[in-house]
Amino acid sequence: MPQKGTLVLWRPDIKVLDCTLRDGGLVNNFCFTDEFVKALYEANVKAGVDYMEFGYKASKKIFKVEEFGKWKFCDEESIREIVGENQTDLKIAVMADVGRTDYQTDIIDRKDSVVDMIRTAMYIHQIPSGIKMIEYAKDKGYETSANLMAVSKIHDQDLDNGLELLADSCVDVIYLVDSFGSFYPEQIERLTDKYLNFAAKTGKKIGIHAHNNQNLAFANTITGLRYGISFLDATVCGMGRGAGNCFMESMLAFLRNPRYDMAALMDFIEKYMLQMKKEYTWGFDIPYLLTGIFNSHPSSAINFIKEGRTDYSRLQQELMDMD
Amino acid sequence: MPQKGTLVLWRPDIKVLDCTLRDGGLVNNFCFTDEFVKALYEANVKAGVDYMEFGYKASKKIFKVEEFGKWKFCDEESIREIVGENQTDLKIAVMADVGRTDYQTDIIDRKDSVVDMIRTAMYIHQIPSGIKMIEYAKDKGYETSANLMAVSKIHDQDLDNGLELLADSCVDVIYLVDSFGSFYPEQIERLTDKYLNFAAKTGKKIGIHAHNNQNLAFANTITGLRYGISFLDATVCGMGRGAGNCFMESMLAFLRNPRYDMAALMDFIEKYMLQMKKEYTWGFDIPYLLTGIFNSHPSSAINFIKEGRTDYSRLQQELMDMD
Repeated sequence: MPQKGTLVLWRPDIKVLDCTLRDGGLVNNFCFTDEFVKALYEANVKAGVDYMEFGYKASKKIFKVEEFGKWKFCDEESIREIVGENQTDLKIAVMADVGRTDYQTDIIDRKDSVVDMIRTAMYIHQIPSGIKMIEYAKDKGYETSANLMAVSKIHDQDLDNGLELLADSCVDVIYLVDSFGSFYPEQIERLTDKYLNFAAKTGKKIGIHAHNNQNLAFANTITGLRYGISFLDATVCGMGRGAGNCFMESMLAFLRNPRYDMAALMDFIEKYMLQMKKEYTWGFDIPYLLTGIFNSHPSSAINFIKEGRTDYSRLQQELMDMD
Repeated sequence: MPQKGTLVLWRPDIKVLDCTLRDGGLVNNFCFTDEFVKALYEANVKAGVDYMEFGYKASKKIFKVEEFGKWKFCDEESIREIVGENQTDLKIAVMADVGRTDYQTDIIDRKDSVVDMIRTAMYIHQIPSGIKMIEYAKDKGYETSANLMAVSKIHDQDLDNGLELLADSCVDVIYLVDSFGSFYPEQIERLTDKYLNFAAKTGKKIGIHAHNNQNLAFANTITGLRYGISFLDATVCGMGRGAGNCFMESMLAFLRNPRYDMAALMDFIEKYMLQMKKEYTWGFDIPYLLTGIFNSHPSSAINFIKEGRTDYSRLQQELMDMD
């Protein structure tokens, strides 16, 4: 059964996961300096964040190393250069996309790694392949999550079938992912119920990863939380693809567990994120609102902004044509 | 009884009120050009917005006319210069603050005015004075609303007593106002219930006016809506004091009444709001998040930003000291 809380209580099952490097990496092509990553790591430790996702475990056969920052690949040595043996409470996660990871060579035994959790991202039709990857990672000793993307495009019956497969798998956490930022809180409420029903049978935890296209990432995250979700994704200053994600600052301020300390992020934001915001663009804006409303991939909005276009009514027409 | 809807239905009791000039006027000292106001009026008419608030009806004895734009005062002639006889479906509202309006001279008979609704803003201790103003306006023939501010600072018992007074008055709409942007959706849910309970006895409507300090203005507005609120305040691009308000674009996209047409706002945003955003600053930002979290007036955040400060952790300490 999902645990219940109040606005002055805290639930011990809640875990906060920082995915600034991973989702934020989609904004700056994973080109974070070591200084930035180290400072973020230290801020996360101080702030009591439970997991920090360092990036993707992408295949070097598919993606050219010289075209991305190193957090696209998350080599064991790259992470160790930042965290050493990671003698902290903060667990380390990486994401692996189905079909884009050489997991049989790149995912080593957990006892030889500082990584604690492998998050496997998949679309609905990739669930069987995803489960195969998850079994591999589990077998190597990792905590695992299944991040089923673009749920707003999946029909109910398919979603039920998919969740059943995942609930029967060895995965630890099943994630509700609003890839296009198109869900309203009442939809998140219903989906949370659905996910929890499947999860309850086999004791899985549920997580949520929200996007801010409609300015609802934080609202949707705390709605999921309220109805029993326990793994919460967030990023510092909401840094993430397109409209970005749930703001870590808001999230930590909302939570009552004394473990969490939002203040620890304030200096990091001042020192690193103000500059980042000058160099890169993300966050709520009309084009992302439009793709969110049309339940559409943010790429058309990202291109619209990159091209310096401001003809919003034209974009709206284009999205309607794609619908 | 509050009306119920679904995500594909629409409720005929829902009314959308644009307060861009009034709350946005707190950003630019009410210095909107006539061209801007005329274009906003036309966009609102096309978009099917129900009410447009033109600004405050402020006392010229208390405030110097030369220190503000004309929408601080909303002279009858100023409004008529924009709307003529207002032969449209869009109703016109103005706001009057208790203690800052010469209502007995400045609020004329409705038959001589293009204004349809007088919104009276008051703090909890001003309710008796507010009701006197509302009775005056009602007597002159206007629709009326009572906008009880800073509810997050009011104790439950006082709020109950205040709502009882308002429910027994002649006012048409009682507004739930989250002045400091400090409420979470589940609090809005409970408050909506409370407001509706008082309102139901005497057939009042309930409205909501949210601020975006925690990125929850839209989420809180649609939460209130879902639980039975019918008057919804929003502003174009969320323009409003500090963190701003609920975005009109998101609001109209959410609503299913064919009357509403978000597309009609897109050209206005492109032509007028992009420039406005270059000249003035409002919207979600760390300092406003902090005042929201601390349930504090946004003025300290507004000053912090004006002074070009970025020492967020210091601001957090300062707010804690004020608590």
